Amino acid sequence: MRIVVIGAGGTIGKAVVAELAPRHEVIQVGKTRGDYQVDIADLDSIRALFEKTGKVDAIVSTAGNVHFGPLSEMTPELFNIGLKDKLMGQVNLVLAGQQYINDAGSITLTSGILSEDPIRYGSSASMVNGALESFVRAAAIELPRGLRINAVSPTVIEESMESFGPYFRGFEAIPARRAALAYSRSIEGAQTGRIYKVW
Amino acid sequence: MRIVVIGAGGTIGKAVVAELAPRHEVIQVGKTRGDYQVDIADLDSIRALFEKTGKVDAIVSTAGNVHFGPLSEMTPELFNIGLKDKLMGQVNLVLAGQQYINDAGSITLTSGILSEDPIRYGSSASMVNGALESFVRAAAIELPRGLRINAVSPTVIEESMESFGPYFRGFEAIPARRAALAYSRSIEGAQTGRIYKVW
Repeated sequence: MRIVVIGAGGTIGKAVVAELAPRHEVIQVGKTRGDYQVDIADLDSIRALFEKTGKVDAIVSTAGNVHFGPLSEMTPELFNIGLKDKLMGQVNLVLAGQQYINDAGSITLTSGILSEDPIRYGSSASMVNGALESFVRAAAIELPRGLRINAVSPTVIEESMESFGPYFRGFEAIPARRAALAYSRSIEGAQTGRIYKVW
Repeated sequence: MRIVVIGAGGTIGKAVVAELAPRHEVIQVGKTRGDYQVDIADLDSIRALFEKTGKVDAIVSTAGNVHFGPLSEMTPELFNIGLKDKLMGQVNLVLAGQQYINDAGSITLTSGILSEDPIRYGSSASMVNGALESFVRAAAIELPRGLRINAVSPTVIEESMESFGPYFRGFEAIPARRAALAYSRSIEGAQTGRIYKVW
């Protein structure tokens, strides 16, 4: 398959590329690195990306930022960071990307454990992850041409513990390569509307 | 208790007022009707509302709009309607309203069945409802002073079947007064971080 991975330079993205590259043609996309660059918050930037890649069999997103901070200090603007980037950025990939996916191809987005298991300072991440998961369930029943869509919901990643560990005390971290299996399952399996929890 | 109901003139709001008014002081708020008016998409408008009401024991929101339409015709702008109004409008009530709630008071927001059970044309509603439910779980563990927060997730309401029925074929509609019980349970019970499903 031809698979485009957006966020390919990130912790999970690198593991997804490593998992898929031995048996697929993987196009690596980042904000500043990779074979191509894209700003997922900008629909035109996404369209320009797919004009360059041409048709693909699968789109994978491991991209998107949210703001972490105490609820008492959150503002509409700080929530908006995650809504524009991790949420609508990934939704934009669906809106603009679906025309460039071959019949029966797939889209795999990334949510995260905080949709179900909240932590202090994580209200924006919870909001965005919950939004993504319900969106995926809804999009799955409307996508045409046998297109499929799933999300992977990882817990905290071992390789990210240095930066995220203090937020996730007591959580069992997983290696990125274990999360990467769920992306393979989404792309190479046949299910749609699924949230693959990796924790 | 002193309870402020935002969206008091709506289908569910009216039933919530009817349920609570016999035993509580209920302040009815709407966009254009009620004892006071508010635009929940505007944080300053919410602050101005609570300056007028003074301290309350509970905030209830049955307010918020989303755009319904085929996924193939959705745009970032159309998703933004629901994100700004039903999602961030209700989140704004939490951000600005918490200072005006007495210790151990409660906030009750409204999500809906589409977070779990999608329908055609409902991708924005699913997204927003999923976001609200995960936000509520997260906010519950950070709110100070024993403040509680829950969401009510109703299925389609009997009284709304004329407008929403065609979207919800085969769904068992419930009378608004049954949904109203869940708000009472949230306000007069002691739980927090709960999603009360009424379906």
